[in-house]
Amino acid sequence: MNRNIVVAEATGTSIEDRPVEIVERKGIGHPDSLCDGIAERVSVEYTRWCEENLGGALHHNFDKVQLVAGEVDVGFGHGQVIKPIRIQIAGRGTPETPDGRKVPMDTIAIEAAKAHIRETMKYLDPNRDCIIECYAGRGAGELISVVDQITANDTSFGASHWPLSGLENCVYQTAQHINYDLLDQFPIGEDVKVMGCRTGDEIVLTCAVPFIGPELKDHTEYEELKSAVQAAVQKYADGLDKRSVTVYVNTADNAEKGDAFLTVTGTSAENGDDGSVGRGNRVNGVIAPFRSASLEAAAGKNPISHVGKVYNVMALLAAQDIIEQVSDIGAAHVYVLSQIGMPLDQPLVATATVRAKNGTLTDSAREQVQAVLDAHLSDLSGIRSKLANQEITLY
Amino acid sequence: MNRNIVVAEATGTSIEDRPVEIVERKGIGHPDSLCDGIAERVSVEYTRWCEENLGGALHHNFDKVQLVAGEVDVGFGHGQVIKPIRIQIAGRGTPETPDGRKVPMDTIAIEAAKAHIRETMKYLDPNRDCIIECYAGRGAGELISVVDQITANDTSFGASHWPLSGLENCVYQTAQHINYDLLDQFPIGEDVKVMGCRTGDEIVLTCAVPFIGPELKDHTEYEELKSAVQAAVQKYADGLDKRSVTVYVNTADNAEKGDAFLTVTGTSAENGDDGSVGRGNRVNGVIAPFRSASLEAAAGKNPISHVGKVYNVMALLAAQDIIEQVSDIGAAHVYVLSQIGMPLDQPLVATATVRAKNGTLTDSAREQVQAVLDAHLSDLSGIRSKLANQEITLY
Amino acid sequence: MNRNIVVAEATGTSIEDRPVEIVERKGIGHPDSLCDGIAERVSVEYTRWCEENLGGALHHNFDKVQLVAGEVDVGFGHGQVIKPIRIQIAGRGTPETPDGRKVPMDTIAIEAAKAHIRETMKYLDPNRDCIIECYAGRGAGELISVVDQITANDTSFGASHWPLSGLENCVYQTAQHINYDLLDQFPIGEDVKVMGCRTGDEIVLTCAVPFIGPELKDHTEYEELKSAVQAAVQKYADGLDKRSVTVYVNTADNAEKGDAFLTVTGTSAENGDDGSVGRGNRVNGVIAPFRSASLEAAAGKNPISHVGKVYNVMALLAAQDIIEQVSDIGAAHVYVLSQIGMPLDQPLVATATVRAKNGTLTDSAREQVQAVLDAHLSDLSGIRSKLANQEITLY
Amino acid sequence: MNRNIVVAEATGTSIEDRPVEIVERKGIGHPDSLCDGIAERVSVEYTRWCEENLGGALHHNFDKVQLVAGEVDVGFGHGQVIKPIRIQIAGRGTPETPDGRKVPMDTIAIEAAKAHIRETMKYLDPNRDCIIECYAGRGAGELISVVDQITANDTSFGASHWPLSGLENCVYQTAQHINYDLLDQFPIGEDVKVMGCRTGDEIVLTCAVPFIGPELKDHTEYEELKSAVQAAVQKYADGLDKRSVTVYVNTADNAEKGDAFLTVTGTSAENGDDGSVGRGNRVNGVIAPFRSASLEAAAGKNPISHVGKVYNVMALLAAQDIIEQVSDIGAAHVYVLSQIGMPLDQPLVATATVRAKNGTLTDSAREQVQAVLDAHLSDLSGIRSKLANQEITLY
Repeated sequence: MNRNIVVAEATGTSIEDRPVEIVERKGIGHPDSLCDGIAERVSVEYTRWCEENLGGALHHNFDKVQLVAGEVDVGFGHGQVIKPIRIQIAGRGTPETPDGRKVPMDTIAIEAAKAHIRETMKYLDPNRDCIIECYAGRGAGELISVVDQITANDTSFGASHWPLSGLENCVYQTAQHINYDLLDQFPIGEDVKVMGCRTGDEIVLTCAVPFIGPELKDHTEYEELKSAVQAAVQKYADGLDKRSVTVYVNTADNAEKGDAFLTVTGTSAENGDDGSVGRGNRVNGVIAPFRSASLEAAAGKNPISHVGKVYNVMALLAAQDIIEQVSDIGAAHVYVLSQIGMPLDQPLVATATVRAKNGTLTDSAREQVQAVLDAHLSDLSGIRSKLANQEITLY
Repeated sequence: MNRNIVVAEATGTSIEDRPVEIVERKGIGHPDSLCDGIAERVSVEYTRWCEENLGGALHHNFDKVQLVAGEVDVGFGHGQVIKPIRIQIAGRGTPETPDGRKVPMDTIAIEAAKAHIRETMKYLDPNRDCIIECYAGRGAGELISVVDQITANDTSFGASHWPLSGLENCVYQTAQHINYDLLDQFPIGEDVKVMGCRTGDEIVLTCAVPFIGPELKDHTEYEELKSAVQAAVQKYADGLDKRSVTVYVNTADNAEKGDAFLTVTGTSAENGDDGSVGRGNRVNGVIAPFRSASLEAAAGKNPISHVGKVYNVMALLAAQDIIEQVSDIGAAHVYVLSQIGMPLDQPLVATATVRAKNGTLTDSAREQVQAVLDAHLSDLSGIRSKLANQEITLY
Repeated sequence: MNRNIVVAEATGTSIEDRPVEIVERKGIGHPDSLCDGIAERVSVEYTRWCEENLGGALHHNFDKVQLVAGEVDVGFGHGQVIKPIRIQIAGRGTPETPDGRKVPMDTIAIEAAKAHIRETMKYLDPNRDCIIECYAGRGAGELISVVDQITANDTSFGASHWPLSGLENCVYQTAQHINYDLLDQFPIGEDVKVMGCRTGDEIVLTCAVPFIGPELKDHTEYEELKSAVQAAVQKYADGLDKRSVTVYVNTADNAEKGDAFLTVTGTSAENGDDGSVGRGNRVNGVIAPFRSASLEAAAGKNPISHVGKVYNVMALLAAQDIIEQVSDIGAAHVYVLSQIGMPLDQPLVATATVRAKNGTLTDSAREQVQAVLDAHLSDLSGIRSKLANQEITLY
Repeated sequence: MNRNIVVAEATGTSIEDRPVEIVERKGIGHPDSLCDGIAERVSVEYTRWCEENLGGALHHNFDKVQLVAGEVDVGFGHGQVIKPIRIQIAGRGTPETPDGRKVPMDTIAIEAAKAHIRETMKYLDPNRDCIIECYAGRGAGELISVVDQITANDTSFGASHWPLSGLENCVYQTAQHINYDLLDQFPIGEDVKVMGCRTGDEIVLTCAVPFIGPELKDHTEYEELKSAVQAAVQKYADGLDKRSVTVYVNTADNAEKGDAFLTVTGTSAENGDDGSVGRGNRVNGVIAPFRSASLEAAAGKNPISHVGKVYNVMALLAAQDIIEQVSDIGAAHVYVLSQIGMPLDQPLVATATVRAKNGTLTDSAREQVQAVLDAHLSDLSGIRSKLANQEITLY
């Protein structure tokens, strides 16, 4: 059966030509990102357990995790968690197989959350600093046969674009650089937030970077290290775009009051910032309000039949492949729409809105784009295995 | 001081000319909508208490509420809640005023949630069917002086468009019609979901409508009533757009298996569907993936200084006023960007991207649009009082 | 089969002849009593539901309820609950019948708790002032056939004595008088505590009586009403024993500091006093440390097979019947010991230690006592129906 | 000021001469014992923190801990926790010192609970198998000056006797032997229960001993090991009393059905047995229903001013010293009664009811007994430091 694939030409102002652009990335230690990461890890570990123990997947949907901030006592040279962070895992799973075998759903979920925190956060100890609870309830109980045709669980859609705009790229790379490189060089935590604003050809990156109070002597040392972090980020960001980039760090500090962004655990979840799944970065890693995107939270949903997860990831991968494989195309925005009850590989419509580098979309390019979409729709199992192996970060 | 207001002309394909469009509205009884409604009501009641008892507002942010589904036993002619719905209110408030006076934050929050449920849901009893807990913690404690200049709490933005597209309007009106009119005529609940899909000139509205099990005799009666609901919705929807509209109701029912969408309380929150703030409708009432929108959850945030709330509402109101007051303009999309620490009425930039009815944006129209934006930026207290009086639904 | 019933003569000093005696009663609104009452009501309502819907009882054990105190803001002329009381019902029940029918265990438990509070407390509103959660888990699932022989679920025992000593009677009657009579005459609550101490022939009753802050104008009115309550209790207590009785009320008040025992809801559970099942009064209504008693919490256990409940109640009823029916006997202490796995009506041994009024236990009296015990052991269903109809207060 | 100390002669039948005696000990891994141990450890660690950081103690009362059983999947050769055990710490403490310093009450409480479990249980991992929450609230905030006179917080009392009866000793020693010696020799857990019944001169000890499912191959191995445990206990118990002792192990097993007492973690808290403070052993280590005892839960209360803790421990220590130091005395039962507001070392009355070995209480022995009581009342700080150093097990 032929798939309904539509390739259209992008019209209107390109994102790079807009006068103003704003983009944000919440770092991996931001409360919302932590919730996304935990939700997804629960799904991964639950799926793994089912594969290993039951030889197949079980329906689930763990896309609801709420983080309630704790309370700390922190200052220069000291710090202590007064009240642990509370992590409330919700969602649906299958506590028992059709033949009566118990599935350790709560244990899997809680251990997955701890594993995520342990592997993501340098200073936050999931056992000491968090209380993790699983409120997940009973969902539909059937074993999903992945051999059979999988049908869409909902009328929904996925959407993503590629490449990232210059600003989006700046924001994304800068946040990752702080999270993965600077973390080893400075006494800082993972709850980084990079807000990028482009006005014409000027890019401003405003970075919030938490410092670790117990590791610092006094306010003087804080200011010195903050300057050093600013310099390091500025140096890194200079090479990211052809336009000028200016970096600010912790601008909310009121120097006169001696304010400082100090934490014990590297995340503001410790003292005043709550989090939730689906409230942070989209699957391409950024929040870009001038772009259209899916509101669906991909993290935590089951990778077998859940449109909100499978189609969002597919849209991103397809857009990336279009740019990589179709040399004429400079930008692609992919939408995939499901129809409840229809096979997942037969969407209502899959659309790529593309922009040719030289301004005109050739028939050949159009066919190549179509082929990329078709290939992705034929390879749902490829997406599932990428998700199972955590090769795709959804936030 | 002059404000930085930019009026630009919309380019590219208009939403009505796109070949495919998809729009969704989650009804007022959907678990995500319930969370939005509860979060906002908590903010409203907390603000009211502070005004009445302290003569001013206190910082707060109740934009995190998680709903964990309950469990029911339901069938034709009977139904019972087995395990109550669990509602977990999180966020930050001020449990004590600067001069040591206790603020009944938990009590206000829980009572506000109950009030929202009581006034929204016909069959769901907040005392009998829900366990409502307040995990909200201590935030910054200062009293906000609304006389003084309010500064933005974050670098963030608001975005909204007006008018709704033909499909958006169909979806919105249909959902509201079921929620507010048909509810009185049929034994149905509020957890309605309308998914609209337009392909060319054909509009399809797929409606999920929960029936109240105890009120129905048997499957025959269910099928009869479902047909009657379908007919009523079809009749109503026929007049909503000049294009053809086809209405489906509860298509997920498998007739052979005798499936039916039955509930005890009118919401799937009772048995398997969790909810969270900010995961449902945008401030204009719909989810429109082909449009750009803010990801910020407006519900529950404080109406004094929180950009994610104030600017989103302002963007919607300004876009509506542009359409109403500037006769040449057929469509407007407003973005307002804040800069942390700057006065809220002095955004980094406020932009309206407008489409002239006759294709050309005149200088006069441009000036009128600019004036509308300026007026809204000068009247933050108007927005706050609309929010305080619940004149604006944020979802 | 003959039962192993032993009737022995009491030796040693009678309770009335001890130089010092101390007895306590926690009133019906004390946090521990509330927990006992809730636990028992859950058992009663669960049993009732099973009888009505399943035609039989299901195993359960709801003898664990913890109350976590709330927080209030209270003073003369005003009062408000800041943070609700948290009631944590634990224990075991059967969420599903053997044939797959769901039992609304959580709903029954929570509604039972509310019913108990509503019927016991004048000022405490279970919906407004409490958060009630059910953590009860799955126990053994079999339906108990009450037609068949019931066997003891444990090697355990029940113990009780009758009559109450003079001091025990004073303490019990006084607490009940305040709880049931004075409550209608004064602005006071149910969290009464009466501590009785007898030294030789002098009885002192120290009563803690909570006043309702919002109902009082000022400290002067408090002192006046406290004196009036003291006078009323003194008058009532004067007739209770042949020995002199002195009554004190709220002696912990420090007059100089202006202390007062004020509450909003009538119980200190509102602000600082936690509670738990089995930590308060024994089945005869008092805590009498110079007497031997069972440590088992009777409240909440299933009335069919749980020795800790059935034998404790039986011991009390049998002791009462001995005093009533065997005119020669002035005091009786009954112990009934079970053996796990043996029929409940065939205890390992049932003992009555009795004291003859004239000092000598006659053979006739001994036989009558034996007959009373035998009759009670033959009438387990009588005990069960008394419990089902709430004719026996277990605390 | 002279203390009111009364020494009386015991009358009536001695415990050893009663025809029937029943005594129980819940092992250190029983859910109730775990709650007692956790409550006490929280008090110890909280006191330690305050001493180290504030130079003094803070009022507290952590005598409420509820354990909600988890769920496991266990069999021969395998076992897994499906749902963690939930431990709910309640009570009152001081979250902030008078000068505004934060006290990490929640963190101390949770870490203390984990430390207790880690040091008590071989197979139960507090991080992996438990969810530990602290619901403790704010109590009175003053720093207790231990230099000043401490006054009783309540009208209450302590009571204990020494020596243990022959049966009490058998039960206690046997449980400890299994808990501390056999645990290293067999694949068994700590949730041991020893129920002792003496009928005339025959002692029967019925022991419940949990086996560790994953460590056992099959039912045959279980039966073999159970016999070996029975033999080991029988051998040990033979030497404990001059009367004959018969030992049974896991009599509830139904051999035909292949029943076995299997656990994953060594405690039935993992699957169906809830626990609570104050529902298990008294301060002398046993539950002896034929003896009078205090109902107060000593564990978790503050060791400075709480009568329910200090006087119960004092009663036990004084009774032990009487037996050790006054050679004429064969048995002692000590009661100490407080009067609220009076100095703790000036009880209303302290009574020792003693039984002389040769039947007659001499004046000299009476004086020595009085001196022992007086010495203990003069040395409250000795009791406090014993409690602080965990030299006394309260259950």
